[in-house]
Amino acid sequence: MSEAAVTLEGWYCLHDFRKMDWAAWKAVSSEEREHAIHEFLGFLEKSEGVQARKEGSHALYSIVGQKADFMLMLLRPTLEEVNELENAFNKTSFAQFTIPAYSYVSIVELSNYNPSNDVDPETDPMIQGRLKPELPQWKHVCFYPMDKRREGNDNWYMLPMEERKKMMYSHGMIGRSYAGKVKQIITGSVGFDDWEWGVTLFANDAVQFKKLVYEMRFDEVSARYGEFGSFYVGNFLPKENVANFLHV
Amino acid sequence: MSEAAVTLEGWYCLHDFRKMDWAAWKAVSSEEREHAIHEFLGFLEKSEGVQARKEGSHALYSIVGQKADFMLMLLRPTLEEVNELENAFNKTSFAQFTIPAYSYVSIVELSNYNPSNDVDPETDPMIQGRLKPELPQWKHVCFYPMDKRREGNDNWYMLPMEERKKMMYSHGMIGRSYAGKVKQIITGSVGFDDWEWGVTLFANDAVQFKKLVYEMRFDEVSARYGEFGSFYVGNFLPKENVANFLHV
Amino acid sequence: MSEAAVTLEGWYCLHDFRKMDWAAWKAVSSEEREHAIHEFLGFLEKSEGVQARKEGSHALYSIVGQKADFMLMLLRPTLEEVNELENAFNKTSFAQFTIPAYSYVSIVELSNYNPSNDVDPETDPMIQGRLKPELPQWKHVCFYPMDKRREGNDNWYMLPMEERKKMMYSHGMIGRSYAGKVKQIITGSVGFDDWEWGVTLFANDAVQFKKLVYEMRFDEVSARYGEFGSFYVGNFLPKENVANFLHV
Amino acid sequence: MSEAAVTLEGWYCLHDFRKMDWAAWKAVSSEEREHAIHEFLGFLEKSEGVQARKEGSHALYSIVGQKADFMLMLLRPTLEEVNELENAFNKTSFAQFTIPAYSYVSIVELSNYNPSNDVDPETDPMIQGRLKPELPQWKHVCFYPMDKRREGNDNWYMLPMEERKKMMYSHGMIGRSYAGKVKQIITGSVGFDDWEWGVTLFANDAVQFKKLVYEMRFDEVSARYGEFGSFYVGNFLPKENVANFLHV
Amino acid sequence: MSEAAVTLEGWYCLHDFRKMDWAAWKAVSSEEREHAIHEFLGFLEKSEGVQARKEGSHALYSIVGQKADFMLMLLRPTLEEVNELENAFNKTSFAQFTIPAYSYVSIVELSNYNPSNDVDPETDPMIQGRLKPELPQWKHVCFYPMDKRREGNDNWYMLPMEERKKMMYSHGMIGRSYAGKVKQIITGSVGFDDWEWGVTLFANDAVQFKKLVYEMRFDEVSARYGEFGSFYVGNFLPKENVANFLHV
Repeated sequence: MSEAAVTLEGWYCLHDFRKMDWAAWKAVSSEEREHAIHEFLGFLEKSEGVQARKEGSHALYSIVGQKADFMLMLLRPTLEEVNELENAFNKTSFAQFTIPAYSYVSIVELSNYNPSNDVDPETDPMIQGRLKPELPQWKHVCFYPMDKRREGNDNWYMLPMEERKKMMYSHGMIGRSYAGKVKQIITGSVGFDDWEWGVTLFANDAVQFKKLVYEMRFDEVSARYGEFGSFYVGNFLPKENVANFLHV
Repeated sequence: MSEAAVTLEGWYCLHDFRKMDWAAWKAVSSEEREHAIHEFLGFLEKSEGVQARKEGSHALYSIVGQKADFMLMLLRPTLEEVNELENAFNKTSFAQFTIPAYSYVSIVELSNYNPSNDVDPETDPMIQGRLKPELPQWKHVCFYPMDKRREGNDNWYMLPMEERKKMMYSHGMIGRSYAGKVKQIITGSVGFDDWEWGVTLFANDAVQFKKLVYEMRFDEVSARYGEFGSFYVGNFLPKENVANFLHV
Repeated sequence: MSEAAVTLEGWYCLHDFRKMDWAAWKAVSSEEREHAIHEFLGFLEKSEGVQARKEGSHALYSIVGQKADFMLMLLRPTLEEVNELENAFNKTSFAQFTIPAYSYVSIVELSNYNPSNDVDPETDPMIQGRLKPELPQWKHVCFYPMDKRREGNDNWYMLPMEERKKMMYSHGMIGRSYAGKVKQIITGSVGFDDWEWGVTLFANDAVQFKKLVYEMRFDEVSARYGEFGSFYVGNFLPKENVANFLHV
Repeated sequence: MSEAAVTLEGWYCLHDFRKMDWAAWKAVSSEEREHAIHEFLGFLEKSEGVQARKEGSHALYSIVGQKADFMLMLLRPTLEEVNELENAFNKTSFAQFTIPAYSYVSIVELSNYNPSNDVDPETDPMIQGRLKPELPQWKHVCFYPMDKRREGNDNWYMLPMEERKKMMYSHGMIGRSYAGKVKQIITGSVGFDDWEWGVTLFANDAVQFKKLVYEMRFDEVSARYGEFGSFYVGNFLPKENVANFLHV
Repeated sequence: MSEAAVTLEGWYCLHDFRKMDWAAWKAVSSEEREHAIHEFLGFLEKSEGVQARKEGSHALYSIVGQKADFMLMLLRPTLEEVNELENAFNKTSFAQFTIPAYSYVSIVELSNYNPSNDVDPETDPMIQGRLKPELPQWKHVCFYPMDKRREGNDNWYMLPMEERKKMMYSHGMIGRSYAGKVKQIITGSVGFDDWEWGVTLFANDAVQFKKLVYEMRFDEVSARYGEFGSFYVGNFLPKENVANFLHV
């Protein structure tokens, strides 16, 4: 039996992708639309309060292509809070004009292949800050879920710890070379959703997503052991632009 | 030909995942909603009576993410009773506001790789209690279906009994190390549904699902031989909270 | 090139799985429902006449879980008759309250790996009875489609006849050990539908489906060469119970 | 690099599978249904004119099972004409009562592994007749798309020409042994649709589809290199029977 | 770790495939249809202005078969502009009569396995012209997404640069032999969408798509390393023909 890496978990996370039901949206009166927008902005403002109190975080991005029109990414300390937030959104009048497109349930995770003995992760501010992050408001987002492969001779979970550690280190080096260009949040979803991890990338230049993911694909840990789900890419949608985004 | 393990079967089981049709739910009058909630609570109360008489068991959990809004898990002695219960639910006025999202048909199973000769499973109270369990009301649930792989050199069903027994023992040891943190109910579904087993986990700290499933993934029986379906995770929804859960 | 086994074909077969549109069903008047039930019972009675004349057979089972609410299994001598029957059902007022869930087109088949030279299959009553069977009215049904695998070293169709014959014989022995408990009808669908065979099992104790299919899975012919589609399990629904099954 | 076989291309081809929306069909007045049938028959008559002028061909078959209710197979010299024909059908009032179920875009193809030097395929009447065929009106049809496998050691496209030629010859011999029983039209779809070829078989005895496809499956070219899509089987639906087929 | 090839990126690209909701389209008045067509033409005209200013490009093709009725291909310098354009289209009254069928998000890419040191790609007019192309108005289009395989011994991303370079060169030679017959635009989608590349081909004779893709399939880079998604094929739909295309 292989030894599992130590993992640290932080806030629970829901990626909630929605399509707009444009036909229904256009069919109602502008009063009804204004009311719905108002409710949605209220939902966002309440979430801003939570974020200001460091009790969670959220992000809103419009999504390019037919897969979805926007993504709400929600972080909260407990699974119950995430669930309540999701239900609260579903009960808004705005939600009635959206169509669920995809969602992902996970938890912010630090996979610690090289644990330091000098710090207590439960109190260390840097580690705690990464486990309970305030989501960046960079111009673009990229989300994709992934697995480590378990197939024939390419079985990640059968590798000795040392080998995995070495590959993860080299993998991390590529990530680090994009520091300042791409910010990455890894969320673990083993036992929570259909893939093992969710990767959320933020960048101010979207082409950096492509350069990073492409470069990593030649890295053995991706080339031989990475299995990838659907990719979603989008643009930051600040609260002030929501009304315009929805204007018809 | 490999020898199959001895299995013991108990109650039949239906996992019934449903989405709420929130738009339809909001569209009707509050009287109609109250009536529907009343019918649903009546359905649950009737089931509580069955449970009190040890003639079955059930559990209700809200589900996180878009896959479903809630899961009803139903245990009954016969397939006919499960079917009747399902149809009774479908005929409630509440069901008309739900959308079927996923279901799983199985039977509580003990896979006995090390049968003891000292007890008669048909009468032994501990074994009977595990085959006809009262479902726990822990804070969180996790459900996923799974297969044992049959692919090239990773073919579980071609392994000799001794090898499978050894791997299952080591696998069970991990499970046992989570005693008190995670409660597990295995249901067999060979011949009943699309995967070979359903795994239902209960925990009061949801992160234990992740830790257990992740640790097990490095175990050879999962690493080389486990194939996993969709994962569902949720929160206990006591009867008293149903009205609030559905309040719009 | 491997030699194909000799196969004998009997009646054409349609497995027609349907969901009830319970919302629509409840929305109409009880008169309309009665009329629809009446039409459906008329459809079944006409089919009973055909069965009495040994010109076909049929079976009606309710299905457990969300995959379907019931299954109509229809046997007729020609593909045209199966098609006409299906269209006749589709044109009933009852069908308007059902939603197609899955169907399977095949033909009753005997795969003759050990043909006897003593009998003429075209006239032998036992063989003819198996090719043109009256479907049993046992308490439970189990249906699944399957393929023989063609992958890397596990390629059934590249095996020499002798090896296949030996494996099929051992496979048949397991089936025979369930005589009296499980009745099995094999229908071939190469050229007719997406899998190569449909397996329909009947039992009075549903757990025997699980025991049979599980035991067979350790048999080399299943372990290495079996690929399985979706499994459907259900309960016998006699004509007299149809009105009750549909009562809302 | 392997050498590609020489291929000859004829008429473009669209297989258009449709379900009937029986509920909508029954909901309108018999006048509306008659009008829709009239428009559909007009569409077919116009196509008969094209066929009479040898400027295309078409076939109409009812399909057994829930996958579709009927298939229109359309052949025309250009992709524009196929597209226009499809759009013309979509604009008929009849089409509003149908639901698209599946379609396949391809071109009649002769894959010439043994090109003769004696004939000019551009003028040879037999070759031209096969490339621009009038579709047969046999009692049954069978359609399935397929690929040649490219997996591990079973990679058709990495085989030397000579080996492919030998296997295709043996494959063709099986086909030829069904002469008079099964007529086969191969259409190529590389670059046009999701599989590499479409196979359309015609027979007066449907069981011959099963016998042919099953026998071929043991042939190395299918056993090791064939990947198959969905199979559709149906019955010839002459224009005179359309009204009856649609009568409710 | 293998070395990634140098890639140059140009304009962002959205392939937007739509079905017509013919029933809804026919249900409204001819005034409403005219209004919708007018809005759609306005959308196209605005895009022509952008194209004239070399600030983007677009193409409109009708698609053959049920997968879609038309494809809009949109090129813009930034992901925000692509997103705005998509949303603008979604807000037209015409869009309400269309059903999203498939979309693809990517960026025009030159994969430079043999970078020349003599030119600066940022200023070289030929390279810049290929990165920011005006889309051709050839008679036919073919689109498909693809991956390079990472499976067992066929793992593109584990190959040394030299080997990949050699294979890509030979691959490019085939493409070049179709010069004048097929024009090809490669867009990269690593990090943007579910496949790694999108291939858009233009031809005046559609059969050239088949000949090119088929010939390439025997090339080792495709035979062993190519994984292909769905293929879409269609006909150029000039703005002048839109009204006729939509006329009912």
